[in-house]
Amino acid sequence: MSSRSSAKRADALRSIDAILQAAAECLGRNPEASLSEIARAAGVGRVTLYAHFASRAEVVDAAMARAIERGNAALDSVDLTGDPRLALARLVEASWHLVDEARALLVAAQRELSAGRIRELHDGPASRVETLVARGRAEGVFRTDLPISWLVNVLHTVMHSAADEIRAGRLAPDHAAAHITATVLAAFTPPGKLVPELGDPR
Amino acid sequence: MSSRSSAKRADALRSIDAILQAAAECLGRNPEASLSEIARAAGVGRVTLYAHFASRAEVVDAAMARAIERGNAALDSVDLTGDPRLALARLVEASWHLVDEARALLVAAQRELSAGRIRELHDGPASRVETLVARGRAEGVFRTDLPISWLVNVLHTVMHSAADEIRAGRLAPDHAAAHITATVLAAFTPPGKLVPELGDPR
Repeated sequence: MSSRSSAKRADALRSIDAILQAAAECLGRNPEASLSEIARAAGVGRVTLYAHFASRAEVVDAAMARAIERGNAALDSVDLTGDPRLALARLVEASWHLVDEARALLVAAQRELSAGRIRELHDGPASRVETLVARGRAEGVFRTDLPISWLVNVLHTVMHSAADEIRAGRLAPDHAAAHITATVLAAFTPPGKLVPELGDPR
Repeated sequence: MSSRSSAKRADALRSIDAILQAAAECLGRNPEASLSEIARAAGVGRVTLYAHFASRAEVVDAAMARAIERGNAALDSVDLTGDPRLALARLVEASWHLVDEARALLVAAQRELSAGRIRELHDGPASRVETLVARGRAEGVFRTDLPISWLVNVLHTVMHSAADEIRAGRLAPDHAAAHITATVLAAFTPPGKLVPELGDPR
């Protein structure tokens, strides 16, 4: 009985993972994808989907949480020590495409979840960036005349806009990380100080 | 007969203007506002609305075009001569709230119009910024290591994000123009040059 229940549990976990993977893909292509489409893409029935998720909002919430958790796990391997400017460059290099991948999912999340919940889901990645920005300010390489929350917002917003520019065909994906880094490092430089030269960003 | 037809024409223009004004307000509050709601807010009947606009998309398109035209007219009075950095500061001061006001309308436009059409509508304001950025590059005060299209995009995206930060309660409207200007002027500074000091942006 205990081995049967553990097999059932493993089945359930596999179904849930397949549903959330399918949700990320379907919602990424179309933020209005239905639960039937998601169930079909996951290879499970609607009954199975509803056994695990009470509503579309629950599916979107869990898919978003999973995408952010995976992104966070990938970022855990980024070295954020040393010169905060170089650390920021490494963070951008490792994370801009995660932001891009999560973007379409975010559109679905914005229609289905509250702004507060979306913010809560982003707390992990946001605090990582906040810590780095605070260290850069303490070391005198990032500006202190604008609030940390604003600087973090600038980084996010420039990463998001790079994804938009790629989709619009105005930016080659290969150039994205360098463009973002060159822009944000300059934006973070204290007034009266030199903008760092990190080599030609093109 | 000619005075009767000119009176009818004046009536029609008044109705159209009332409809587009109501559309901007209704769609600003709710991007999914229906044509019935818009007609009611404009104080015209649905028949009158349909006499002037064949579809919801036509109303959204015309409302967006009107908002941009008005914004452009307001910007015509901004002095964009002299030091390109100070000109950019004046442009931000005069335009960030227009961007904010047009934002909600843009959400409706993005659901109803093609990306190409939205871009076309923005061509006027975008070319104004492009010209200023190109002049700043020619005079050596704005960076040339990133494409003009990217720099224009950074300005737009930072203005949009200021509006988001205000809505989220993380930025006081009084600080918006100074935050945007401080951020964008630094972002536009060529690597190896000093970030300009324009006084404390807070």
